[in-house]
Amino acid sequence: MKRFKATISYDGSGFSGYQVQPARRTVQGEIESILKRIHKGKDIRIAASGRTDAGVHAVGQVFHFDSPLLLDPENWKNALNAQLPEDIYVKEVNEASPGFHARFDAIKKEYRYRLLRSKEKDVFRRHYAYHYPHFLCAEKIKEAMKAFLGTHDFTSFSSAKSTVEDRVRTIYELELLEEKDEWIFRIVGNGFLYNMVRIIVGTLLDVGQGKATADDVKAMLLAQNRSLAGKTAPAHGLYLYKVTYEK
Amino acid sequence: MKRFKATISYDGSGFSGYQVQPARRTVQGEIESILKRIHKGKDIRIAASGRTDAGVHAVGQVFHFDSPLLLDPENWKNALNAQLPEDIYVKEVNEASPGFHARFDAIKKEYRYRLLRSKEKDVFRRHYAYHYPHFLCAEKIKEAMKAFLGTHDFTSFSSAKSTVEDRVRTIYELELLEEKDEWIFRIVGNGFLYNMVRIIVGTLLDVGQGKATADDVKAMLLAQNRSLAGKTAPAHGLYLYKVTYEK
Repeated sequence: MKRFKATISYDGSGFSGYQVQPARRTVQGEIESILKRIHKGKDIRIAASGRTDAGVHAVGQVFHFDSPLLLDPENWKNALNAQLPEDIYVKEVNEASPGFHARFDAIKKEYRYRLLRSKEKDVFRRHYAYHYPHFLCAEKIKEAMKAFLGTHDFTSFSSAKSTVEDRVRTIYELELLEEKDEWIFRIVGNGFLYNMVRIIVGTLLDVGQGKATADDVKAMLLAQNRSLAGKTAPAHGLYLYKVTYEK
Repeated sequence: MKRFKATISYDGSGFSGYQVQPARRTVQGEIESILKRIHKGKDIRIAASGRTDAGVHAVGQVFHFDSPLLLDPENWKNALNAQLPEDIYVKEVNEASPGFHARFDAIKKEYRYRLLRSKEKDVFRRHYAYHYPHFLCAEKIKEAMKAFLGTHDFTSFSSAKSTVEDRVRTIYELELLEEKDEWIFRIVGNGFLYNMVRIIVGTLLDVGQGKATADDVKAMLLAQNRSLAGKTAPAHGLYLYKVTYEK
């Protein structure tokens, strides 16, 4: 039995999220059904770095799985890609140590959130960037971003549905990239709570519109109360961009 | 009764092409059904600059229609966009002269064809660019492009199914743009036969791979025989980019 680590991208538009659900098309469900076929009917479970919601995309999601088959990593990549639907793609497969865990061993995660800033809608990006043609002050957003950096209790910035006990997370980087007609929020942290990136983005949009300030963001963090932060930005602008592991 | 000219973009992925067909989802069908609703059940026909095939996109398709309603162009744009599905977008509506015809008055058309040149597939562009990771020589392609410029009989570069009598067309511009990981074929002409751009692109891919030369292209044009030219490149890389009318 060997353990493999796979890095995949997927277009979240056609999935009811990452995690298996009965009678729903999910990323995990698609991959496990192909692994089952490759293993002649034997169930093979995969474990990802974390879930993504319906509509959320991945540029570099990571999962691991165990297999008794004697395929080398490049053959695993090809075997999976040959059978996967065209909205999931395996970018890389590596052999991992037997103790490797895609979720517990992740030390950093990067998410990106794409805002389309053009006045007109773009039919080609309707599933890939949140169209936001309204006024935003980039300077105010950048100022407020600093408040998120470092270690905080992110209760105010996680879904009220979240049942996780420990809501302390560390944000290493948070920046606003301006690329042609898009603004991209780039955030790197040691982990993220349910809806955390989308609520941070929603709050920063309030800041950019002058409805909240950097000081308000600091107060929201301290209050540990979801109702004080901004709206949850739509799923389709969000990308799980990269998961980092110790060498 | 007033005549209006509308410029639209659409994502061709979800359509069985532009032209109305029974029991199929088409661009024309979607727009005419909304115009019918706006006109309280009265059929309103639209006339476009030309058809596009299933999977082919438009950045700037143009059509005209007549209406007795007293809406100004900006209101037409908003009324249509409010009801259109999210894969069609009206960019502009203008009042046109009563004799204006979107097809017969077009003096130039521009198409673009996107090739994704990355080694790896990109799930986010699977419907928007033709993934072509194979070797291509840009210089050879650029050399062969010159053979298409000017006025020629394009029988060899049109579908054998084409029933058009006059196959003489003029190409004003044909160039290869390299943008990040994409190569974009840009072609401007006074009109295009059925599948003409896709067959030109397919032939230029042969040239780029060394399977044909610029001289072969000249011979293909003279031969007026579809079987001598290259394959028809896939629909999903093609965009009707712009239609130009006399001022």
